[in-house]
Amino acid sequence: MKPFNLIKDIIEKRGAIEEVYWVACGGSLIDLLPAHMLLEREARRIVSGAYTAREFCIAAPKRLGEHSLVVACSHSGNTPEVLDACHLACERGAKVVALTDGAESKIAQGAWTCWVYPWGADVPASEVPSGIAPLLAAELLDQQEGFADLPDLYRGVDTMDEVLPAAREKVNAELGERFAALCQDHPFLYILGSGPNFCQTYGFAICSLMEMQWQSCSYIHSGEYFHGPFEVTEPGVFYFLQMGSSEYRAMDERALAFLSDHTDTLMVLDALEYGMDKVPASVRAYLDPVLFYAMNVELRAARGKAFDHDPDFRRYMGVVSY
Amino acid sequence: MKPFNLIKDIIEKRGAIEEVYWVACGGSLIDLLPAHMLLEREARRIVSGAYTAREFCIAAPKRLGEHSLVVACSHSGNTPEVLDACHLACERGAKVVALTDGAESKIAQGAWTCWVYPWGADVPASEVPSGIAPLLAAELLDQQEGFADLPDLYRGVDTMDEVLPAAREKVNAELGERFAALCQDHPFLYILGSGPNFCQTYGFAICSLMEMQWQSCSYIHSGEYFHGPFEVTEPGVFYFLQMGSSEYRAMDERALAFLSDHTDTLMVLDALEYGMDKVPASVRAYLDPVLFYAMNVELRAARGKAFDHDPDFRRYMGVVSY
Repeated sequence: MKPFNLIKDIIEKRGAIEEVYWVACGGSLIDLLPAHMLLEREARRIVSGAYTAREFCIAAPKRLGEHSLVVACSHSGNTPEVLDACHLACERGAKVVALTDGAESKIAQGAWTCWVYPWGADVPASEVPSGIAPLLAAELLDQQEGFADLPDLYRGVDTMDEVLPAAREKVNAELGERFAALCQDHPFLYILGSGPNFCQTYGFAICSLMEMQWQSCSYIHSGEYFHGPFEVTEPGVFYFLQMGSSEYRAMDERALAFLSDHTDTLMVLDALEYGMDKVPASVRAYLDPVLFYAMNVELRAARGKAFDHDPDFRRYMGVVSY
Repeated sequence: MKPFNLIKDIIEKRGAIEEVYWVACGGSLIDLLPAHMLLEREARRIVSGAYTAREFCIAAPKRLGEHSLVVACSHSGNTPEVLDACHLACERGAKVVALTDGAESKIAQGAWTCWVYPWGADVPASEVPSGIAPLLAAELLDQQEGFADLPDLYRGVDTMDEVLPAAREKVNAELGERFAALCQDHPFLYILGSGPNFCQTYGFAICSLMEMQWQSCSYIHSGEYFHGPFEVTEPGVFYFLQMGSSEYRAMDERALAFLSDHTDTLMVLDALEYGMDKVPASVRAYLDPVLFYAMNVELRAARGKAFDHDPDFRRYMGVVSY
């Protein structure tokens, strides 16, 4: 499937889309959030909302209807909350596009459009949700309102395929062992980031660390840090700062200056030193999350090795009933 | 100032408001978020966005303009990021309403409407931002589109003044000492909540605990909990669950069931046992945050007493430069 064709087809069949809802859970929701932020920032008419699927079902927006597009994502394709959300959206007359890796899953059998994506470190960025979602948002925006940065976004997504292999090597060489060692000495850490990349600040916390490593941590927005959370900073408290490469970076730089002075336990991953300078500046904000997701994967693997904790092992998810 | 009159005057002078942006930092942003969620859920035409002020300035929505209303809040009235956001909004032609406790502050001197509010445990809920903001949202919605729950919301806000004194006594009698004792035995805790009240889940973490008690913690959405974070749960890990009283409660109940089985260190504050049953069911979702804020204040005070850590003491905020 191609974002251009999919969006063109939707508009031809339904007329203009008035609102887009990005609906998923956990890691899949995280991959949709930058697309939501792109529309919130750039659109003059299209409305955008993002919801964890259960909350979407409990309190669906009144305006959800025939002129709405719901982009849902379930990696397995069997997440009950996401299936419920797709059914609800259909009942309300909305157009539903479901992204999944599960070609044989429940979500692939629904009465909606299903985009089955491949998965793995070698799959191009344009073929997984973190690339597909911003391209869908940008195509919708371009075809309905115009979006001058669309060519940059396509170019940027493709550039990620050049950026990631070297970035993976670099993070393993420079940060992997230190991260694992710091986790051994600290039962808890704070992760900071901002802008669209804050989704991967949250993602590093809830997916890579809490879920896959049983490592306690918290996630703080670099801009919000100065309005409360910084009071907890002192030597010995472990901070991991995700420095973005876009205009949002100013917030991360301010956090860097403060953290450098007020803790002795700081790790920094600067996207500009990991290849994001090759990505058009106009769209870096929406692609930093692609870089940081890949870096999160390497760092959790490094920790997993040091702790003998396989990131694929679960004690509850899909194991017990809940 | 009265929400009805303020909104009526804005609409008379400007015509219909097309979008509302809620802009502040930290605790002040937290007080605006339920109003944003009310509009996202209930409005058929009005668009709503919420931003930490620095991010609003870095990436202001393209649609920000003459038909926009920006509701800003700075408790002190001197928060530089919020002042910048007010100036930016004015330059773009938006109507700005600034809420502050600082009658002599910078934000009270701006070329915009300023609503100076009183502060303190005895001030009616209708006169502080957590009451004012949902009433502004509801008035705008009612005057432009109709909002059947508006009378319930006014009644609910007033009911909070009856609910809070007894709730404060109850939380101190039943949870204060235990919370402080658990903090002494646990360097870290997780706070869970959902829906509009998730703002106070975040608020308990970043304001009451990180800022005012230098207590490390994290905040997890009860619906998202099952999509990653629950893997970190085990006996000895300290959880504090904020059980809401509204339709979002279903997510908190599911978390309660899992937590009850998988940790031995759980504190629950159930809004329905703290008086929220007296509030009209239709608007409880937007007023649970008023209850939980008041409970957060009592719990941090109880911890502060046990740790000899005055919640008003700061080592960085307003003390060092940053």
